[in-house]
Amino acid sequence: MSEGVEWGIHCCTVLALLPPDTALPAARLAEFHGVPAPYLAKSLQALTRAAITESLPGRHGGYRLARPLDRITLLDIVEAVDGGQPAFTCTEIRRRGPARVPARQYTPRCAIAVAMARAEEAWRRELAATSIADLLITLSTTVPPDAAAKGAAWFQEVLA
Amino acid sequence: MSEGVEWGIHCCTVLALLPPDTALPAARLAEFHGVPAPYLAKSLQALTRAAITESLPGRHGGYRLARPLDRITLLDIVEAVDGGQPAFTCTEIRRRGPARVPARQYTPRCAIAVAMARAEEAWRRELAATSIADLLITLSTTVPPDAAAKGAAWFQEVLA
Repeated sequence: MSEGVEWGIHCCTVLALLPPDTALPAARLAEFHGVPAPYLAKSLQALTRAAITESLPGRHGGYRLARPLDRITLLDIVEAVDGGQPAFTCTEIRRRGPARVPARQYTPRCAIAVAMARAEEAWRRELAATSIADLLITLSTTVPPDAAAKGAAWFQEVLA
Repeated sequence: MSEGVEWGIHCCTVLALLPPDTALPAARLAEFHGVPAPYLAKSLQALTRAAITESLPGRHGGYRLARPLDRITLLDIVEAVDGGQPAFTCTEIRRRGPARVPARQYTPRCAIAVAMARAEEAWRRELAATSIADLLITLSTTVPPDAAAKGAAWFQEVLA
């Protein structure tokens, strides 16, 4: 999984705290997270393509969330940034070698691919069960209070 | 996930069908699956290091399973071949940027890392719930009958 996923999730939690009718430029999000702006821009563009964030033009423009907090899940972000392709790829090796038979006989999907897909489905289900709204609640108990205060001060300065 | 995982699982299901006191050389396993022998050898060595398979020396030597079928899970094979490192890596970006505070204040683990780890735990749990013994039962319904017959004939020839 690319580090763009980690960045994308963190950005969404920060954008979730924006006052209405405000937005944060990509450069500010990069500054806040201490990550390289050009790479972060790619993640933000991917989130925007997936209609998770939206980009507002103009002097006070930048990124903001495009949907309510409870309608953006971790799965949405992972798939937006890294794509939805499965981790396990079945290359149908059962169709090679001395035991191979004509293609039309391989009607049921290989039991190995099915079992591997079932595990990924469990992973996806768990990611889909956590929204940005849920994350904010748990983050409120894991972000150090001093960091929250410094973050709030930075926000006020940037949005002034 | 590397294709060595797919190969490793398929090899285990083939080795599970070996008569007692027999073994299959890596070259034969590569032939059966139509995959390159040198690469497959790496997966088999990884499975052996994890005590999933064992390697017997000598003229009738080769690989065989080192444990009962119900004590080898998909998770065992995935971890043996690809390692046990998580797909999502938390690089603690919360400790960078203008809101950072001294390291000792980051006591609770980041809620984002916790949520991502929970999803991977669901994936691992599902993989751990499927053994080679389980797979053989479902494979018996997905392997085309003609392929099973050809496979059995190949086995007899190779083990003769």
